[in-house]
Amino acid sequence: MTRVAIQGATGYTALELMRILLRHPEVKITAITSRSERGHVTSVHPSLAERLNLSFENLSAEELGKRADVCFCCLPHVASMESVPQLLAAGLKVIDLSADYRLSDPGVYEQWYGHVHTDPTRLGSTIYGLPELFGDQIPGQELIANPGCYTSTSILALAPLLKAGLIEPTGIIIDAKSGVSGAGRSPKTNLLYCECNESISAYGVGTHRHQPEIEQVLTASSGNTVDVIFTPHLTPMDRGILATIYASPTNNVPAGVYLEQLGGFYADKPFVRVVEHLPKTKDVAFTNYCDVTVRTSKDRVIVIAALDNMIKGAAGVAVQNFNLICNYPETTALL
Amino acid sequence: MTRVAIQGATGYTALELMRILLRHPEVKITAITSRSERGHVTSVHPSLAERLNLSFENLSAEELGKRADVCFCCLPHVASMESVPQLLAAGLKVIDLSADYRLSDPGVYEQWYGHVHTDPTRLGSTIYGLPELFGDQIPGQELIANPGCYTSTSILALAPLLKAGLIEPTGIIIDAKSGVSGAGRSPKTNLLYCECNESISAYGVGTHRHQPEIEQVLTASSGNTVDVIFTPHLTPMDRGILATIYASPTNNVPAGVYLEQLGGFYADKPFVRVVEHLPKTKDVAFTNYCDVTVRTSKDRVIVIAALDNMIKGAAGVAVQNFNLICNYPETTALL
Amino acid sequence: MTRVAIQGATGYTALELMRILLRHPEVKITAITSRSERGHVTSVHPSLAERLNLSFENLSAEELGKRADVCFCCLPHVASMESVPQLLAAGLKVIDLSADYRLSDPGVYEQWYGHVHTDPTRLGSTIYGLPELFGDQIPGQELIANPGCYTSTSILALAPLLKAGLIEPTGIIIDAKSGVSGAGRSPKTNLLYCECNESISAYGVGTHRHQPEIEQVLTASSGNTVDVIFTPHLTPMDRGILATIYASPTNNVPAGVYLEQLGGFYADKPFVRVVEHLPKTKDVAFTNYCDVTVRTSKDRVIVIAALDNMIKGAAGVAVQNFNLICNYPETTALL
Amino acid sequence: MTRVAIQGATGYTALELMRILLRHPEVKITAITSRSERGHVTSVHPSLAERLNLSFENLSAEELGKRADVCFCCLPHVASMESVPQLLAAGLKVIDLSADYRLSDPGVYEQWYGHVHTDPTRLGSTIYGLPELFGDQIPGQELIANPGCYTSTSILALAPLLKAGLIEPTGIIIDAKSGVSGAGRSPKTNLLYCECNESISAYGVGTHRHQPEIEQVLTASSGNTVDVIFTPHLTPMDRGILATIYASPTNNVPAGVYLEQLGGFYADKPFVRVVEHLPKTKDVAFTNYCDVTVRTSKDRVIVIAALDNMIKGAAGVAVQNFNLICNYPETTALL
Repeated sequence: MTRVAIQGATGYTALELMRILLRHPEVKITAITSRSERGHVTSVHPSLAERLNLSFENLSAEELGKRADVCFCCLPHVASMESVPQLLAAGLKVIDLSADYRLSDPGVYEQWYGHVHTDPTRLGSTIYGLPELFGDQIPGQELIANPGCYTSTSILALAPLLKAGLIEPTGIIIDAKSGVSGAGRSPKTNLLYCECNESISAYGVGTHRHQPEIEQVLTASSGNTVDVIFTPHLTPMDRGILATIYASPTNNVPAGVYLEQLGGFYADKPFVRVVEHLPKTKDVAFTNYCDVTVRTSKDRVIVIAALDNMIKGAAGVAVQNFNLICNYPETTALL
Repeated sequence: MTRVAIQGATGYTALELMRILLRHPEVKITAITSRSERGHVTSVHPSLAERLNLSFENLSAEELGKRADVCFCCLPHVASMESVPQLLAAGLKVIDLSADYRLSDPGVYEQWYGHVHTDPTRLGSTIYGLPELFGDQIPGQELIANPGCYTSTSILALAPLLKAGLIEPTGIIIDAKSGVSGAGRSPKTNLLYCECNESISAYGVGTHRHQPEIEQVLTASSGNTVDVIFTPHLTPMDRGILATIYASPTNNVPAGVYLEQLGGFYADKPFVRVVEHLPKTKDVAFTNYCDVTVRTSKDRVIVIAALDNMIKGAAGVAVQNFNLICNYPETTALL
Repeated sequence: MTRVAIQGATGYTALELMRILLRHPEVKITAITSRSERGHVTSVHPSLAERLNLSFENLSAEELGKRADVCFCCLPHVASMESVPQLLAAGLKVIDLSADYRLSDPGVYEQWYGHVHTDPTRLGSTIYGLPELFGDQIPGQELIANPGCYTSTSILALAPLLKAGLIEPTGIIIDAKSGVSGAGRSPKTNLLYCECNESISAYGVGTHRHQPEIEQVLTASSGNTVDVIFTPHLTPMDRGILATIYASPTNNVPAGVYLEQLGGFYADKPFVRVVEHLPKTKDVAFTNYCDVTVRTSKDRVIVIAALDNMIKGAAGVAVQNFNLICNYPETTALL
Repeated sequence: MTRVAIQGATGYTALELMRILLRHPEVKITAITSRSERGHVTSVHPSLAERLNLSFENLSAEELGKRADVCFCCLPHVASMESVPQLLAAGLKVIDLSADYRLSDPGVYEQWYGHVHTDPTRLGSTIYGLPELFGDQIPGQELIANPGCYTSTSILALAPLLKAGLIEPTGIIIDAKSGVSGAGRSPKTNLLYCECNESISAYGVGTHRHQPEIEQVLTASSGNTVDVIFTPHLTPMDRGILATIYASPTNNVPAGVYLEQLGGFYADKPFVRVVEHLPKTKDVAFTNYCDVTVRTSKDRVIVIAALDNMIKGAAGVAVQNFNLICNYPETTALL
């Protein structure tokens, strides 16, 4: 049995995390924190009624260290890099769901997030928690940087083809569509029902922070400098990401070769399904699966991947990382 | 040509109003005000690009009086009763879309809105702008209290049957379902896309402010004290109200009698359609129509009415009132 | 380990059932049938890729009897009463999700379903599978009539208050709102996305087949003849039912008394949550919970209940019944 | 006053067309046809109650010729090319909303539509009804090929940049997202609410019939052979198309140059708005506008365009063509 704390437990990701962890036979949630809320968990998350009998607390890292073995940090970026060193000092293992430990270069972090990184020495050494690529390095870690949702979708689609040298590492276009939950639970006008419903739009064209994250991880995993153009879109649905990715083939090979490479790469990975049909986000909604397929058209390879941004894109992969760290079977609570 | 100003022009109702007025051949929009915004109208309402070349201004009533002949006041309640007397004093005709001039009794206002009414003498004398009931009193008025959206739906469904004595005036149950736009454009957590989407819920059970408004108008128009139980529901759609209303018949008459009474009552009213089928809110979306039908089941008369809360429930009826005040044909810009 | 077959496995209910059963540690799905489909389960349900490696077959009851211990029958009504006697004869335990064994009177069945019941002797004796009311009679049964979705919502809200004599058994008004999945997966024009989206409407006013089912079960469980007016509404969301129920109190008691009675009645029932806040269907989406609360307004008791029509209203309660029949803990695979 | 008939009037496009034409001061709708329906228009389109008092008829071209001056043909492809020659022979001017007269090469038609074209001589000479490009050729025509919805979006975004030689004509990637109404009103399983809602997916990758149409028109208008990769996506909303288009610049020029070229090109076109912000489909919903903007990222020009597929993508542009043919002001009934 592992005692688990959740720091920053009022958001959608934390809710999803609690839902999953409550099905985990080896987990006991022992603390949930919030800077602003003090009520029972159901005052913010009524869906957890009779599931979790805890109230939000404002706990120090030290107190969390006494209460729990592992802490899922769901704070926003910047807040996270202030908290994580303290949590580690308090003896906790930490899975950080913010962006603060994903980039390996403090300069790149500062450029994209507009803040000097205050814990730069951990940047290079923190493992990027995408188990399909780095699963063998995760057990035994004390800190895991949980990946971004767009990032995971894009990397899972591209890494096998890049590693095999089947597509060019440059000029890749990632046109990604996400449900609204990815934007969080803050009361902003642009996230109101009547703003998002019945509307799709691009945002952050060329400026979204998942772009350098995608490039960094694909570059590291393939050994070639990867550059991508990344365009996210806000789509009128709660959850789901679909990435439609356009790449140039290195050689003229039949379409089946790409599918085969993907199939082989993920043959023993429980949460990536290489499929022949065009995946819908609904196929993977409320699951930890990422569905991937590939098509060719004229001189392009088109890779299409779908996952649930709240689960495989956030809380589910966090539990997958947790399982690996704690030596539980990787799929526990995730099927 | 009538010069029109819109006070409080950043919200959804004001946007809808501008869309309608821009199709009105006898209207020129000359001013739009906001307490906080100063940019071009498209900075808040991009859908008006190349339609309206005005910027938000913070104008006094006096300045508005120089710019316009008629002012649509889209301020929230309380703010409205501070502004309206000044607008009238500046020589403007005013159509007030807030609740401030709908109730005729200052005590009832204070009880339901929690504020002392600061312009109580106008309460008794202001005409309630539901043209299907009070259309003959509207021409020549200087101030019109534009009705609430739930209120209009409920009154249009019930008034003809109450007036004819076909249903009991007490014990009426109004179960109403509204799209999210009725709640406005303020950034509140409970109005976020991910809170409203894929969810329906009741709110304000027994405490919604449209309840006394419904009772007042139905009592006044039928001559009997009407009391209702009113339950609003937040429905995952942008716009539309459906009211399902349960009343007790006064006599045992065939179902067709109710439909006939409704049909006769609205025979010469251009915006109420008495239909035989069960209306969907989509049938009236983006129109100024209210569709009504009636069924009987066991010992109950069930009246069902649908309208677009943003149009027939707010901006459309406001323009209908405007047309009547200014002696334009009632349907101008509304078909 | 129990071997389970699903008859009529192409619909939404069957999909939901498979999703739940795949998480059940004591279940092995051994056969899925369809009259029309012959492909792999993923050809219809791509979300089950790598979860279930079965193809649709057209199996006789005898063949199913060799393959499985328990059969969930997801056929439409009429087809179900043809199949169930054969399944029982083949030695299977059967949980029937159709309406064919829910009503106890063949005459009432014929009146509402327009078909002579061909297995009338089982009608009186088949247990109605609502575990919160009839849980002690379910273990040991060979056939369970799984309840209707609107029915469960209504009964769970009303039964405790009727049993305690706190509300009048007649004149009850049930205004219910359902997501579209309740209407099934047949390609009908009125179920198209563009017909349902952004629209709410009543249907089957006074004629919906769940009305006699509600009355029968509430009458049986309370000992008084219960009559209700039932109005279903099609709501633009995938799943969820909200019932807003208006009843007359028998005595003038404080509102808290009703909540207390509900709380006491369901104190040891794992899947009904008596809450103080107004439940949203989203609170119970993708769960087997029914959330219930109560309000009073003027002379009415208003009971509000929410559940997921696909889970607590269909597949989840079916597994709950399965657990009781097979002596597994009631909550297995359902939390 | 022009008498107008609508052939194939049961679908969504025809409904939209009727809504617009009913606001047209110079139009009288005199006939609506259907092969299967015979009831009043409201039996299929209840939203037209009290707006249009016509019933569906099965009229020959000759009969239509007596009843009307202009016929909007809303038949599906193949049916359209059987009807159009007869309509023309009967003296009608025809605006054909199908794909049958859009492609100029009968061989290309056969390749993409799988049918031999039975009216091939008209293919080369029929004007493609995109007024922003071919507006000066439309007046006086007897037959107009109304453009496809994806096509118009893509062409309006690209044509000015291609004409100016600012982007390369090859390797263009069009990633387009459409609301569900574009798929029509036929009862197909994949168009059910519960299939489309809360889901986004690509379809017809590399095989969608609007691809050759886009290429043909852009090639003709720019004078260079244009080739595109076109990927449509089904998006959970009623209406709207967003095209995110990736092209390679021919020279290294500042981003503002592209926007300026677009702005200049459309300066006197009433229905294309070149904007600086990223357009949402909601900005143009229920309007005849197409909003376009442009961004640069790394070595790519990203053009983003949004329109309402039912209006500017179908019925609205059809009325725009009608206005030009009949010498009415181009914007009549469309603002």
